[in-house]
Amino acid sequence: MTLEIGMLGYRFMGKAHANALARLPMFFPDAPDVERGVLIGRDEDALRDAADRLGFSSIATSWEEAIDEVDVFYNLGPNHVHAEPSIAALDAGTPVFCEKPLAPTLEEADVMAETAREADVPAGCAFNYRFVPAIRYAKRLLEAGELGEIRHVRGRYLQDWLVDPEAPWSWRNDEELAGSGALGDLGSHTVDLLRFLVGADDIAGEISRISGHLRTFVEERPVEGDGAGTDETRPVTVDDAYSAQLEFENGAMGTLEASRFATGHKNDHTIEIHGSKGSLRFSLERLNELEVLREDNRGYKTILVTDEDDPYVDHWWPPGHVIGWEHTFVHENYEFLTAVAENGEFEPNFEDGLAAQQVLEAIEESDDAGEWVSLD
Amino acid sequence: MTLEIGMLGYRFMGKAHANALARLPMFFPDAPDVERGVLIGRDEDALRDAADRLGFSSIATSWEEAIDEVDVFYNLGPNHVHAEPSIAALDAGTPVFCEKPLAPTLEEADVMAETAREADVPAGCAFNYRFVPAIRYAKRLLEAGELGEIRHVRGRYLQDWLVDPEAPWSWRNDEELAGSGALGDLGSHTVDLLRFLVGADDIAGEISRISGHLRTFVEERPVEGDGAGTDETRPVTVDDAYSAQLEFENGAMGTLEASRFATGHKNDHTIEIHGSKGSLRFSLERLNELEVLREDNRGYKTILVTDEDDPYVDHWWPPGHVIGWEHTFVHENYEFLTAVAENGEFEPNFEDGLAAQQVLEAIEESDDAGEWVSLD
Amino acid sequence: MTLEIGMLGYRFMGKAHANALARLPMFFPDAPDVERGVLIGRDEDALRDAADRLGFSSIATSWEEAIDEVDVFYNLGPNHVHAEPSIAALDAGTPVFCEKPLAPTLEEADVMAETAREADVPAGCAFNYRFVPAIRYAKRLLEAGELGEIRHVRGRYLQDWLVDPEAPWSWRNDEELAGSGALGDLGSHTVDLLRFLVGADDIAGEISRISGHLRTFVEERPVEGDGAGTDETRPVTVDDAYSAQLEFENGAMGTLEASRFATGHKNDHTIEIHGSKGSLRFSLERLNELEVLREDNRGYKTILVTDEDDPYVDHWWPPGHVIGWEHTFVHENYEFLTAVAENGEFEPNFEDGLAAQQVLEAIEESDDAGEWVSLD
Amino acid sequence: MTLEIGMLGYRFMGKAHANALARLPMFFPDAPDVERGVLIGRDEDALRDAADRLGFSSIATSWEEAIDEVDVFYNLGPNHVHAEPSIAALDAGTPVFCEKPLAPTLEEADVMAETAREADVPAGCAFNYRFVPAIRYAKRLLEAGELGEIRHVRGRYLQDWLVDPEAPWSWRNDEELAGSGALGDLGSHTVDLLRFLVGADDIAGEISRISGHLRTFVEERPVEGDGAGTDETRPVTVDDAYSAQLEFENGAMGTLEASRFATGHKNDHTIEIHGSKGSLRFSLERLNELEVLREDNRGYKTILVTDEDDPYVDHWWPPGHVIGWEHTFVHENYEFLTAVAENGEFEPNFEDGLAAQQVLEAIEESDDAGEWVSLD
Repeated sequence: MTLEIGMLGYRFMGKAHANALARLPMFFPDAPDVERGVLIGRDEDALRDAADRLGFSSIATSWEEAIDEVDVFYNLGPNHVHAEPSIAALDAGTPVFCEKPLAPTLEEADVMAETAREADVPAGCAFNYRFVPAIRYAKRLLEAGELGEIRHVRGRYLQDWLVDPEAPWSWRNDEELAGSGALGDLGSHTVDLLRFLVGADDIAGEISRISGHLRTFVEERPVEGDGAGTDETRPVTVDDAYSAQLEFENGAMGTLEASRFATGHKNDHTIEIHGSKGSLRFSLERLNELEVLREDNRGYKTILVTDEDDPYVDHWWPPGHVIGWEHTFVHENYEFLTAVAENGEFEPNFEDGLAAQQVLEAIEESDDAGEWVSLD
Repeated sequence: MTLEIGMLGYRFMGKAHANALARLPMFFPDAPDVERGVLIGRDEDALRDAADRLGFSSIATSWEEAIDEVDVFYNLGPNHVHAEPSIAALDAGTPVFCEKPLAPTLEEADVMAETAREADVPAGCAFNYRFVPAIRYAKRLLEAGELGEIRHVRGRYLQDWLVDPEAPWSWRNDEELAGSGALGDLGSHTVDLLRFLVGADDIAGEISRISGHLRTFVEERPVEGDGAGTDETRPVTVDDAYSAQLEFENGAMGTLEASRFATGHKNDHTIEIHGSKGSLRFSLERLNELEVLREDNRGYKTILVTDEDDPYVDHWWPPGHVIGWEHTFVHENYEFLTAVAENGEFEPNFEDGLAAQQVLEAIEESDDAGEWVSLD
Repeated sequence: MTLEIGMLGYRFMGKAHANALARLPMFFPDAPDVERGVLIGRDEDALRDAADRLGFSSIATSWEEAIDEVDVFYNLGPNHVHAEPSIAALDAGTPVFCEKPLAPTLEEADVMAETAREADVPAGCAFNYRFVPAIRYAKRLLEAGELGEIRHVRGRYLQDWLVDPEAPWSWRNDEELAGSGALGDLGSHTVDLLRFLVGADDIAGEISRISGHLRTFVEERPVEGDGAGTDETRPVTVDDAYSAQLEFENGAMGTLEASRFATGHKNDHTIEIHGSKGSLRFSLERLNELEVLREDNRGYKTILVTDEDDPYVDHWWPPGHVIGWEHTFVHENYEFLTAVAENGEFEPNFEDGLAAQQVLEAIEESDDAGEWVSLD
Repeated sequence: MTLEIGMLGYRFMGKAHANALARLPMFFPDAPDVERGVLIGRDEDALRDAADRLGFSSIATSWEEAIDEVDVFYNLGPNHVHAEPSIAALDAGTPVFCEKPLAPTLEEADVMAETAREADVPAGCAFNYRFVPAIRYAKRLLEAGELGEIRHVRGRYLQDWLVDPEAPWSWRNDEELAGSGALGDLGSHTVDLLRFLVGADDIAGEISRISGHLRTFVEERPVEGDGAGTDETRPVTVDDAYSAQLEFENGAMGTLEASRFATGHKNDHTIEIHGSKGSLRFSLERLNELEVLREDNRGYKTILVTDEDDPYVDHWWPPGHVIGWEHTFVHENYEFLTAVAENGEFEPNFEDGLAAQQVLEAIEESDDAGEWVSLD
């Protein structure tokens, strides 16, 4: 059996997932067979080019029809088109893999999760960083209790592509289209990773209350393109950066932060955890490494997570032959498609997407009210 | 003229300052001559031993008398004895050098600052990290505007000496004696450093509002010493860790954190700043280094701040011959005593001590109320 | 036009090149079209499996016939089968891409280079580390003279997979099959990288004389496999580690080293260069980074070589989205196949393979004689 | 009893040792009492200034008389005045502490060691890096066999103060006065550290043979000072840089290197060791740290060697409060003076100085001959 994929979106995420699909047969031979079937978008010319490049056999400008014809629906469009097509696909009994954040608003995320709950097929939310080998390795340590009682959790996602006030306006700067800014785009990743790593009841549990802080540093940005030469600008209606303080169910403290104004940082997503018996640190820009402190408390060990029995590594190369960012998509697609083929469970799913959304919403609410918000 | 020093306190800080005084003649020959005069404490035997070791010519068990006889009064006692002797000394026209935090409560800090304002002598607050060459180097960059408009400020001070629940109770765990826990002991350093680095009006300005979070992980601790064999415990009435979110006058965002439960971190005080034109990072455990990103935005440069024209370095050794933590005390004493001898200005002074205390107080207040507190 | 590839070898290098070929259309759309045609080996069953996995349309157990039928011949077999098939292919006018080191002996390498010189098609030697973006970036700096006059060059390649004396014997431990040990396997990479970076006349020039040191730490190793339970061992007839001192034509000094006994190092290939105006450092285990010191001589800058205009990066992902070891093969195949299609030049070619071999030979000769060997 | 010190030399090393003597009472109260007695030199004015600054009670322009009057003689002059005064002092029964390298030539070092052997007092050679806590910690690991059988040893000492061809000529550039250049000044430190760490018979043993390479990049340098405005230059008759390959008695391989032309490196002395069970790395510019790999072979642990039971640390500050370069002199003086007071053993002594000299000599000899030199 071959699974035919319909994919909405063909830019950054489209390329990342198409590449992942293309690499499965050589590296994950037990993955289900897939066919890159129909690529869905609005601009027919661009779509045709992309289909050609990304290896899709056909194109469609209407998702409504396409989702009936495919075995799996990938929703990789901008945030504001996550809800409707995903819900329609699930209602039609088609498994859905949706990019993060699940939706621009909590309301939409709620409906999506509700729909997924009632559908009898996998509904995945594509938080790809759960599939970094070093993160899986960290999770093993945490699940085995090797770090002891968790006291501090820290997550930070720093970029700098908006530090120039002349950087052009895009849909990512618009509340209607994106929901939020650094908070949703970057913060959703951080929240999901922390939930994945310490969210289990016997580790730190879920986030129980939160205090948030959002900020827009540059209030309007120039419009690029046709209007070249004009002075047209559009308002930035989302945050450029956010921070948050957390309390977890077990009493652990947390701090979160993300920014598009952190000069010099390109894609710097870091996680740090301190427990009563050990600590760990991870940085996405050195994603093959995990720093772990244990045992005699004499310093962090820099582990190159490329040994044969490290998560997913046996599919790739010998020790020390590092992998890249894109490999997380291969792992993620492998797990998701396997779940589809076997009608099994896949996580992160829409519940996880909703849970992250609830945290983001609480951060915004807290920022508005100037006070802590409870998440119970 | 030789300045005779009276010093209250002879443990950790006593040793650090006595050492600094002893080293001035060889390395800072233009510093005023000082005599380590009278060492003040309560336990006469311990005091005599310490005076012998630290090079003091006499001892006193009452600070009241001693402060009349000396030219400069060093108050290095526990926090709850900062106020009364310092105020008495200043009232008597004796310059005072007081350890941080200035006082356990804002009220006491207020009176101390008020007294200092009316006294005609230097009243220094011993925030020694202002005197790390790398920090001075950072301040030069910031003052010259080389980092551009400041957007993000981050300060973190991690230790782990209380992570073991059996670590014994001490005055540092008691609200009456210490005022607060990690917040006052560690947080006061961070707050002062950030004020020093970005607090000027044309950089980020003062902190304008704050949201704080305090936590005590272990509620009571065993009593050590005579009671050996008994099960006596005492309550921990201060925080084990705190975090905070900040807004500065210029709109920059900040996050603060300190803990005595950060397993594996011994004295890890880090500062990070992102501006529109550059970024910097500092870590106290590598205090000879400063990481600076500028110019072409292509990565942090690890600067070894030991060149001949780096701050204070020409007094010491050739490039690459690193200095230690204690050297910050030598620099600090040099500046303070020079101010005393010349009746000049010294910073950080009691105003700075008070300003830090106001921030700490706001953090506690915010934690109590569960909402942001304004600092105007 | 589609180039049909014949590939001898289907293990580690086979997988690396097959993957590279498979990824070209999506990421390097202007690369020539290729067909993974015939996979060549001896074990028919293994071969069939591999062809299936690696996407080849047919298999052959005799290279003699296969090389006549294909447009390009990839020789990825063990070192001792590099010469004959490569020579035959070139004689037949078929372009050849041969894994490194070019040959187990200088004599064979000589004949191969001679053959390539007379053939009118590209003959590439697959030193893939020339195609790391950070290495290309370094070369740009060196070619632009930004490091000034080169004084010191250092290359080191550390692995540890033989540190256990019970690690099984393989063809890599046999002089007949491999030519040499760490020297040929790892040292050839280092020598090639240094030639690539500083070998031009206006940089440091070629290596002019050399002093070498080889060592076999474990003299025999157990045979694995069918003989399980027996005590059979075979002699290790190659070096486990080597070091060398170099002099370059411009007078610069160099040191080289490689080992399979460097406990804890998996694939740690580092290059360091000091010039009169700057220095640089590279490590393969952090291959997205380059450390560069210039300008004010105040410390190394850690550059993440993932910006849009960094070498090859625009083909992949946005800044900060790191690539892995395997991507070097994609770049290498892209350049080689483009040269084939356009009948252009490709480097590193068999001349480069021969030049590296001459250096390796001189190291062995010097070790035998206990004296420096001139390379003029 | 108070030991009166006579000290020849009052510049860089004079300051370093005078400071160390001054700090002993406060931090090493069980050290013998010392008096900084007579400071010896040629320029009376400079000498008087220095004595004043460094705390010496008198001065002398002739060492011949001075050495009779003191209890201990410190020889901190340039290399060419090491032999005669040290020998005279030892002949007179006065303990001697001599800076490294022991002598400019092997012949002189031989006589010095012979004299020391017959004298009944300690004769120390001031290789201060043996007294870095992290180095002592490393030695503990090595002595306990925790790294297994030693396979590779690497030592490198990089500076850059001569990279500018206009940097002025000094005695350090003259063979008569200095013996050699980077080799003696820096290489002697490296050789001594390696002997200290792995030189014992049950570790790697002594160096058994060696291949050396010396190089002078800039052949003459301008004379500074009175001749300002003139074009006077003097020839550089020593090496600017050296490298060496080693074989140890146990078969381990080694590489050495030092340079005064390593742009950007100020005082970068690094040691790396690989054994069959573990590895370690040390860098002088981060001298509070030691990187150690053991046990599960999963990466280097960065140990901050500032815990209470780390070598010498209990004399100083709490964990994480780092020390500096100068502290190595305090430790060294403490051990040496204790040996003097108790007529005990002190290492490194003149035998160690001689042993290092033999290695340096072999490196020069090998460079001259272009072949390996045996050290048996």
